[in-house]
Amino acid sequence: MSTASAGTASVSTASVNVHIGRVEGCAASRADDVLAVEEPLEIRLGYRSLSITMRTPGNDFELAAGFLHSEGMIRDAGQILSMGRPDDCGTDVVVVELEGNPPESAQPQRNFLMTSACGVCGKASLQDLAVNICPILPPDDIRLSPQTIHGLPDSLRKAQSVFDSTGGLHAAARFSLQGELESLREDIGRHNAVDKLVGAALLGWRMPMSKSLLLVSGRASFELVQKALVAGIPVMAAVGAPSSLAVATAARSGMTLIGFLKNGRFNVYTGSHRILGL
Amino acid sequence: MSTASAGTASVSTASVNVHIGRVEGCAASRADDVLAVEEPLEIRLGYRSLSITMRTPGNDFELAAGFLHSEGMIRDAGQILSMGRPDDCGTDVVVVELEGNPPESAQPQRNFLMTSACGVCGKASLQDLAVNICPILPPDDIRLSPQTIHGLPDSLRKAQSVFDSTGGLHAAARFSLQGELESLREDIGRHNAVDKLVGAALLGWRMPMSKSLLLVSGRASFELVQKALVAGIPVMAAVGAPSSLAVATAARSGMTLIGFLKNGRFNVYTGSHRILGL
Repeated sequence: MSTASAGTASVSTASVNVHIGRVEGCAASRADDVLAVEEPLEIRLGYRSLSITMRTPGNDFELAAGFLHSEGMIRDAGQILSMGRPDDCGTDVVVVELEGNPPESAQPQRNFLMTSACGVCGKASLQDLAVNICPILPPDDIRLSPQTIHGLPDSLRKAQSVFDSTGGLHAAARFSLQGELESLREDIGRHNAVDKLVGAALLGWRMPMSKSLLLVSGRASFELVQKALVAGIPVMAAVGAPSSLAVATAARSGMTLIGFLKNGRFNVYTGSHRILGL
Repeated sequence: MSTASAGTASVSTASVNVHIGRVEGCAASRADDVLAVEEPLEIRLGYRSLSITMRTPGNDFELAAGFLHSEGMIRDAGQILSMGRPDDCGTDVVVVELEGNPPESAQPQRNFLMTSACGVCGKASLQDLAVNICPILPPDDIRLSPQTIHGLPDSLRKAQSVFDSTGGLHAAARFSLQGELESLREDIGRHNAVDKLVGAALLGWRMPMSKSLLLVSGRASFELVQKALVAGIPVMAAVGAPSSLAVATAARSGMTLIGFLKNGRFNVYTGSHRILGL
């Protein structure tokens, strides 16, 4: 096996086969393996480059739509005049045309965070920005039984197509309030999986997602909670741990945030009034 | 337990205590839990904001130094005139002064990727950029036994201080070629953990890291491989899966990339000539 032995034969756009060395104890052998694909996607607004994200190919238009929604640049599918790929740029560029010709100065909020920090005090303005991009959820009468919550990870695993073969993809899934799986997206980036899921809902005119539960296969960061809140999702569950800022943001916005959901157990960090028995 | 029940009492800068609801089967109770802290850090070059990253507080100067190194803006600690925190901005801003007054147009390569894509063809120029920021490693005569590799995760786990209590932190560790743990950093962001580790080596005048092994607790993405290559690290191991672009980049640069390192097994994706028996 040489240094440059990563010979590939595509089995789908989301995974590739490779030949590897495998070591068990002291025994070495050669084997075939499957990798999750990671490639850059550039999202352009007209001629202007908005973002380059490392993503797993597939559902790229959903990813672009979900990204624009999470960043506060569109509210519904009616604002998208067209989405396409430039003839001379292959599959790694998506060009979006929005109605009303947004001004040249329009920026996604993530870039805004990157470039506009602190005229006076960085810390205060950063926290203010975090507050400003996370809406307060409207009141609802959602009540969920623990059994409904416990069943979500099994439904996700049964539906996952790529994760089991590569071990390298994050998943995000939308469920009904009765716990039925309605939509599933996978990506090498956890934020992309959520953007694809939200983008699919947006392009299908299903926004806001106020009657949906969101399950993510990994941890719950601030960024994922923010994306879910902008989409109007009232209940978010993670198989892994939440961060301090994810919990604080969910609490401020009135979201129910669940963590460590596995093996018949879960923790409720915020919004426990939506869980029967708590 | 109310919606805004995320009352916190800090136990360290890297974790906070919270009161939560806990559900096991159908039994609900209240409990105490510990969260990994996630807060924004702004890195400034003089008066100019370069980056805002969501990170776990601690080792912020190392994080800033490692970020500047990974982005190709500094090569050694001698180029840093000073690092400090503005008096009026609390702890979430680091200001770096570099020698030679870098021109106003100097940009980290990640921002460059974000803003300079494709005059002619996005795909080609994106891939060229990926090549340009990943150096080819010089030849070496490193040969590692499988036993040395197998022992790395146990050494990491024994040394981890926060991970076990929150389940929310990524770890990055530097080992000698004999498998001895030399340095460990943890963060809510996997790229930050590597930036802190590289920054610690840079500030300690230990660059390049050509006699070091890198172990990361999660998956191996392109971004992590790129950071390791810029630091001159010849062998990188991940507890989780590598991505297709991580493997392709490691192969091109001559790095040994190991994945799924756990339970006495591992896969060698590239550079197997450095592993005895392969």
